[in-house]
Amino acid sequence: MSNHELPRTEQTRVKRLDEKQVFDRDALNALLDEAIFGHVAVVREGKPLVLPVGIGRDGNHLLVHGSTGSGIFREIADGRDVCVAVTLLDGLVYARSAFESSMHYRSAVIMGTATVIEGDQKLAALATLTNHMMPGRWDEVRETTKKELAATMVLSIPLDVASVKVSAGPVDEFEDDGDDRSIWAGILPLRVVAGDPVPSEMTPEGTPVSPSVIAQTQRLV
Amino acid sequence: MSNHELPRTEQTRVKRLDEKQVFDRDALNALLDEAIFGHVAVVREGKPLVLPVGIGRDGNHLLVHGSTGSGIFREIADGRDVCVAVTLLDGLVYARSAFESSMHYRSAVIMGTATVIEGDQKLAALATLTNHMMPGRWDEVRETTKKELAATMVLSIPLDVASVKVSAGPVDEFEDDGDDRSIWAGILPLRVVAGDPVPSEMTPEGTPVSPSVIAQTQRLV
Repeated sequence: MSNHELPRTEQTRVKRLDEKQVFDRDALNALLDEAIFGHVAVVREGKPLVLPVGIGRDGNHLLVHGSTGSGIFREIADGRDVCVAVTLLDGLVYARSAFESSMHYRSAVIMGTATVIEGDQKLAALATLTNHMMPGRWDEVRETTKKELAATMVLSIPLDVASVKVSAGPVDEFEDDGDDRSIWAGILPLRVVAGDPVPSEMTPEGTPVSPSVIAQTQRLV
Repeated sequence: MSNHELPRTEQTRVKRLDEKQVFDRDALNALLDEAIFGHVAVVREGKPLVLPVGIGRDGNHLLVHGSTGSGIFREIADGRDVCVAVTLLDGLVYARSAFESSMHYRSAVIMGTATVIEGDQKLAALATLTNHMMPGRWDEVRETTKKELAATMVLSIPLDVASVKVSAGPVDEFEDDGDDRSIWAGILPLRVVAGDPVPSEMTPEGTPVSPSVIAQTQRLV
């Protein structure tokens, strides 16, 4: 298996609309790098629990962070199985039938167990996470204190058992399915954009907006 | 408990940043109605599995639909426990420290078991789902065929065990925490917008864009 190819296993096999599965690791990385957050699921007392979580990526590992007091983070740190889904909605697909109506999206599902990042690597991982969600911000903010570092848990999940599904094709329409062509069909593209930055109460008037915030605004247009 | 108040149980208690939990059912409904998709989690062979799924709402029930051939839908239909998270990212919170940097979001976590909707109610539920994701579209598309109806599974999950968390406040900043005020702090609002509709290959030139598509474009600005 090439390092650039995602694994073809039963666990990562997309069962529905499998023609949309892609095995390109670059596609996984690009999706994760564009996404700001994902959803992490664990089994708690035999039942599923899923919560939103900010994400980062360090090479072939997904990073998540949270409070050391967080129940779900402590459970994941204990080595229980975790599943993370990261989804970007790219558009709505207006077909001529409700049945063929769908969405354009890119989604990744990552399965595995996490390692707690500690010691010298922890601060670097926090920098990676911060710069993932807010590119360039790490070097603008004040230094993280020892107390803050101790209160934060950073978890790393290998991007080994991962599947990626991309829905980006044309509208499903057929010459002979009896559709009324007078119905407009097509794609409505969707994207996330940033509004105007709003300074905090304690930011002195006239303080220039940080370069990282301006860059984020320009990235999200 | 008022019908407008969400339950205060151990299962729905927000454990982290509990001051952000809201118990207003209207807030839950508004969040679900604005969202186009969520993430559904189940336990499969003892491990968590989470996937993105389009959503709808019928009063006090969350609706999801998928193929009758979908493994996860069949598992949910069998009555196993399900957890659905629906999250909207409203902004990035740029604090003066990485530690206090965060996001504005609204998120709902719904737990329970699902009922399969069949018979006379199924078509109405599909209309609700279609109009949730694409308001007004149901009356524009051709009728759903019996074959399509048979191939679709519609599941209903009661909005009884649900918790809502809203992060919408000011940046966490303190007079005495040693922050350098020269660092800009503030909120970068984010929102989803629609681009220009792109007609499908088989849509005859000059076909007017459907009113529901125009309405969606105007809703997402």
